[in-house]
Amino acid sequence: MLSFHSPIHAEHAPPFEFFRGERVPCFETPARADFVVAELQARGHELCAPGVDSRPLLEQLHSARYLAFLESAWSQWLALDPANAARQPFPSVWPVRTLRSDIEPENFTARLGLYSIDNGSPLAPGTWAAAKAGADAAASCAAALAGKRRAAFSAMRPPGHHAGADFMGGYCFLNHAAVAAQALRDQGVERVAVLDVDYHHGNGTQSLFYRRADVLFVSLHGDPRTEYPFYSGHADEAGEGPGLGFNLNLPLAAGSDAATWFDALGAACRRIESFRAAALVVSLGLDAYEGDPISTFGLGRGDFPRLGERLARLNLPTVFVLEGGYAAAELGANAVDVLEGFEA
Amino acid sequence: MLSFHSPIHAEHAPPFEFFRGERVPCFETPARADFVVAELQARGHELCAPGVDSRPLLEQLHSARYLAFLESAWSQWLALDPANAARQPFPSVWPVRTLRSDIEPENFTARLGLYSIDNGSPLAPGTWAAAKAGADAAASCAAALAGKRRAAFSAMRPPGHHAGADFMGGYCFLNHAAVAAQALRDQGVERVAVLDVDYHHGNGTQSLFYRRADVLFVSLHGDPRTEYPFYSGHADEAGEGPGLGFNLNLPLAAGSDAATWFDALGAACRRIESFRAAALVVSLGLDAYEGDPISTFGLGRGDFPRLGERLARLNLPTVFVLEGGYAAAELGANAVDVLEGFEA
Repeated sequence: MLSFHSPIHAEHAPPFEFFRGERVPCFETPARADFVVAELQARGHELCAPGVDSRPLLEQLHSARYLAFLESAWSQWLALDPANAARQPFPSVWPVRTLRSDIEPENFTARLGLYSIDNGSPLAPGTWAAAKAGADAAASCAAALAGKRRAAFSAMRPPGHHAGADFMGGYCFLNHAAVAAQALRDQGVERVAVLDVDYHHGNGTQSLFYRRADVLFVSLHGDPRTEYPFYSGHADEAGEGPGLGFNLNLPLAAGSDAATWFDALGAACRRIESFRAAALVVSLGLDAYEGDPISTFGLGRGDFPRLGERLARLNLPTVFVLEGGYAAAELGANAVDVLEGFEA
Repeated sequence: MLSFHSPIHAEHAPPFEFFRGERVPCFETPARADFVVAELQARGHELCAPGVDSRPLLEQLHSARYLAFLESAWSQWLALDPANAARQPFPSVWPVRTLRSDIEPENFTARLGLYSIDNGSPLAPGTWAAAKAGADAAASCAAALAGKRRAAFSAMRPPGHHAGADFMGGYCFLNHAAVAAQALRDQGVERVAVLDVDYHHGNGTQSLFYRRADVLFVSLHGDPRTEYPFYSGHADEAGEGPGLGFNLNLPLAAGSDAATWFDALGAACRRIESFRAAALVVSLGLDAYEGDPISTFGLGRGDFPRLGERLARLNLPTVFVLEGGYAAAELGANAVDVLEGFEA
């Protein structure tokens, strides 16, 4: 499958994150994309550098002040103290209920909290460059579909599906799947479906299209009652206003097995068919894999080609965007198995 | 001054907090209240154990599910793993913009995030007992006023003014000043003013009375553009609905000197007079003190008796509730100086 990749992703390599309150080494590492690219090369897939500047798309999806913050966040951090080069900034206050989001604080840490949903999305010197290159890759995939390719894959990280209009979260900074969907819309595709198969609910993508009927968002994921992001992804989230009925969440109990998961995938695909989507964007998280260190679903190695085969039966031009999956050594094989299952 | 105190406060003694993203020893320590009590005793003030059960007041102010969570939080934490006895729970995800607060997650850390605005409010085995005893002390102060005392002081911690209906924050868990104000209202006082002189905006108290005209909230504090809690405390927050016009914020630039501070205090007092308050609750933070380690105002030792004198000129039955102030060694003297200035 035609795949887009840039080594710039490796410039986002923060050492530590906070995971459920504990400071731990980052799960979301450059090695993840490196394994995927190595597998693509080993199996002879076509790898291209992203050629499309996604900025106009990002400006449609993300707020201007969030983009301005993210692009300069690391230099703002360094400007506070040159010694910050060796430190990681983390937020510590968040504008939840009764607190305001409309005024941007002058305090850097408070700005970081304003633009975050968690303290699990650490910044690094190359965060903007890496996330922007990922958005460019997603836009390049959409452009490949306009050029009559059946499918394309963005083999980039950090992931994007937890990022909303004006917040980062869950290792995500810019919403690459939303960029691909918006690019397809701008190319004239009337109805675009986004299918998110990451273990964690794609709250950012959902929120970006929640009031829109032209982009259907469908997600299967760990039940937010027990799984990140906890405050989004419930079955009763159906869209709002003109978007009502164009959001479908299929939360599955932690520990769900492959049979349960594929049943939900079937329901997701049927909704995409009834929507009469003309193109598909797949948020391709691989953390439904039984070997994932921070997830609990039971998909085995052999289930990933099956996933690709099922998606192929939708018979839609399809963009695949790499999201989560933290069993890094198996990530490449599982991802490429999906793509090859799709192409088979 | 008649003062209420219980040694139970010392059961809330978490070792570490997160301060602007860094894990540091707690600023908010049991020694704080111990210094205040020692000073009260040394100067011959009357100390009583709180005799009023504040639960009915807490149930008017805080949500039932928040109270249930807070009361059992430490035992929930221990139930996850007995080894948690030696660990501190910290939240890591918060339900900000587009995320939901209506469903309580089953994951403990996620519940902690649901009920927090920051990760600077660490729990300890005795958090509930200490915070509840502080609420009892505040209610006891109000009862003393009903008994025709001119004033009473709650010499308790942890503080309360950042705690809202369903969230902890800024070392605060239950809103003691709000308990005192509500108790006064329930005793038949028609109009109660809450004056918050803590360095940090009392966002919790503001939020609890934001739609009410019977309780005026007035606060002077460090400008939230640069100071905690960052997302609340701006001058344009004037109340909502029936509460419109009954909230007055007087944010002062970081580094403001005593003259500037007392000018703002004058404006605050004039608003309390025009409101025709029949009783006053003072959220007595002492962190406007020039020696405070995490604040920037310039009040000297001699300014605290002046503060008490100015408040006395309002000529109102007054409850003083201890809030912040982290120069622990001088905290007792500064607090009791305010009380004695008031009584002079």
